[in-house]
Amino acid sequence: MYIQVQKYGGTSLADIACIQKVANRIKQSCTKDHKLVVVLSAMGNETDRLIETANRIYEKANGREMDLLLATGEIVSTSLMGIALARLNVSAVALTGAQAGIEVSCVHSNARILKIHTEYILKHFEKKQVCLVAGFQGRDKDGEIYTLGRGGSDTSATALAAALDAEECEIFTDVDGVYTADPKQVHSAKKIPRICYEEMLELARLGAGVLHSRSIELASRHSITLHVRSSFNHVTGTLVVSEDQLLERAIVRGVSLKMDEGKVSVMNLADQPGLAAGLFGKLAEANLNVNMIVQSAPAKGLNTISFTVMKEHLEEARLLSEEFISEQKSGEIEIIPEVAVVSAVGIGMKSHSGVASSMFAALAKIGTNIDMISTSEIKISVVVHPDEGNRVLEAIHQAFNLGNEPF
Amino acid sequence: MYIQVQKYGGTSLADIACIQKVANRIKQSCTKDHKLVVVLSAMGNETDRLIETANRIYEKANGREMDLLLATGEIVSTSLMGIALARLNVSAVALTGAQAGIEVSCVHSNARILKIHTEYILKHFEKKQVCLVAGFQGRDKDGEIYTLGRGGSDTSATALAAALDAEECEIFTDVDGVYTADPKQVHSAKKIPRICYEEMLELARLGAGVLHSRSIELASRHSITLHVRSSFNHVTGTLVVSEDQLLERAIVRGVSLKMDEGKVSVMNLADQPGLAAGLFGKLAEANLNVNMIVQSAPAKGLNTISFTVMKEHLEEARLLSEEFISEQKSGEIEIIPEVAVVSAVGIGMKSHSGVASSMFAALAKIGTNIDMISTSEIKISVVVHPDEGNRVLEAIHQAFNLGNEPF
Repeated sequence: MYIQVQKYGGTSLADIACIQKVANRIKQSCTKDHKLVVVLSAMGNETDRLIETANRIYEKANGREMDLLLATGEIVSTSLMGIALARLNVSAVALTGAQAGIEVSCVHSNARILKIHTEYILKHFEKKQVCLVAGFQGRDKDGEIYTLGRGGSDTSATALAAALDAEECEIFTDVDGVYTADPKQVHSAKKIPRICYEEMLELARLGAGVLHSRSIELASRHSITLHVRSSFNHVTGTLVVSEDQLLERAIVRGVSLKMDEGKVSVMNLADQPGLAAGLFGKLAEANLNVNMIVQSAPAKGLNTISFTVMKEHLEEARLLSEEFISEQKSGEIEIIPEVAVVSAVGIGMKSHSGVASSMFAALAKIGTNIDMISTSEIKISVVVHPDEGNRVLEAIHQAFNLGNEPF
Repeated sequence: MYIQVQKYGGTSLADIACIQKVANRIKQSCTKDHKLVVVLSAMGNETDRLIETANRIYEKANGREMDLLLATGEIVSTSLMGIALARLNVSAVALTGAQAGIEVSCVHSNARILKIHTEYILKHFEKKQVCLVAGFQGRDKDGEIYTLGRGGSDTSATALAAALDAEECEIFTDVDGVYTADPKQVHSAKKIPRICYEEMLELARLGAGVLHSRSIELASRHSITLHVRSSFNHVTGTLVVSEDQLLERAIVRGVSLKMDEGKVSVMNLADQPGLAAGLFGKLAEANLNVNMIVQSAPAKGLNTISFTVMKEHLEEARLLSEEFISEQKSGEIEIIPEVAVVSAVGIGMKSHSGVASSMFAALAKIGTNIDMISTSEIKISVVVHPDEGNRVLEAIHQAFNLGNEPF
């Protein structure tokens, strides 16, 4: 049985005309002799609209009722797709996440898929029906509804592909694939034909925004090839595959720029063991996600720890840091409300030395001051002044020849 | 255990401000020591908006996917009410029809409630939670979603009241109660303090529009008192009760005017047995609902059968009637595209004679020609020219002294 999973994002379902176009595309996919599962996001900005409505009623709206509310967005688009396919004489069935047998953990707004009871979908396959599944949602054993968090429909699609042992999972979006950099920021950016899970994961976390991190983790664990492509054309997009399926191991596969973080520096702390543990323990307790952390070697017995957080958490981070220094009875706080984080990601870095130095040389050439540096096995990130972000991004893109190199 | 059921209609939930007002009202109801179930309709015209969207995709949209789509309207308003109550520190839980244990028959767009599995609601009562239930919907044994048809939330509320053996079922709407006539049509119309199920059923069928027929039938079967009242004030509304709970048996309780029907006359049919059965059998086969039927005594061996149907079915009725006369090889068709149906309803008619003649006298006094007459035990309806509808309505309202008579 050849099973294919497709997922269509909100921009591909922005209005009725879009829904009808996607319906036609689904009909074309059906001509082959195979089983098809289609996962749908909510239409356009419907999720945001629902959140805004709820927040107008109660700014602290959350939990159970919020999940029940948000889940309707995907049910509406899925039902409408069923109606659009009926018009095209395609035998299809629209299913809520619960009806598709998606069982999730009991964590409102951020549930994880625990199991997919495939018997529901298989039953519809027997009736030769295309299964349309509302993404972003599932149910627990008692029938309570939970959502999977932002971008959760990617995860729904990948989990279905894994559970059904599908050949392919196509992620349809409004871009042609994953690019070496955001084409809006770097004009010479090129589409990447193949990227491995690890690289994609770093780029997704860095805000490339085309795939939900959890879906990449799932795809990696179950060796599902994800095909990120546009719903507006038939061009082949980017294949997200395991490292051994790469055509070549690029030193730098892509670069990204994030402008949504601020920086907190806790300076002149009297050096003593457990400083970092104390500070970041405090932040973790408050569920505050820290992105980059840099601690410099102590000078004259005084220590400095810097970290970046999302702008919306900056004020909370400042308060907690102030609490920390008043407990420590030493130190002072410096806040930089906006920084640019530029990163280069590539699986080839693992085995190549000199990548960091090439990157720093490129920055030196354009006279940019580096504020923080952080590296992982397959990623190098630098923090620079926000006004410099775009220039640095372009410089690194060019330094690694990403715009010209044919893959 | 004192259990109360409330139902709020779409006009009471038109926007966020309305939802917050209703939330306050629910909070006030909670101060007493009792259990509360609140059934909610979709916000304002949301159901119409969803239907229109579906029809823009496919004008023949119906069945399974349409039900799944429409059910979201009530889930949204119910979730938002849960959020509004959370803001007021009221412990409440928002439930879909399925989650509230409402099991229905497998008829899309027009399901009937078969059973309410009260264990779900009772479980929440134990946790001292107000149960908010999405109206208009339910599930079958397999978890498929069905809707109950227009006005179905009244039925949801009444069925819940019956299953939970509730003391009261309040139907909150945008009017103060049931009136002796539509106050927009008859200025002297007065609110009716008590009306019996049978009268209400006739008035509901006649388009009084405040209560869904099926909910009245259910209330009657289980002797549930329905309290129809406004969500915008605290005035006592109309109690819908059994005949023995009436304060008095009015000869005419209320009058109504319907302008949404047209008339078909099949004239000059050669008289023979089975004419009516043949014609109406044909219409029934096509699922065409006929309202009034009048057959006059044959004159010179020729028969005339007239009937009224909703305007939107008039063309289909004409085609079927033409088919019928061509089979009969006699007869001709006359169509009147719009008629006015004026009715007087009162349980006291059962035991009073002369009601019809008073009514006809009132019409004669204003010089109105009566086109058709139809009577039941507790109702008299006349068909008149559409231009005469309002005058006739007022004349009958006055003839039975409905505007002055104190109840």
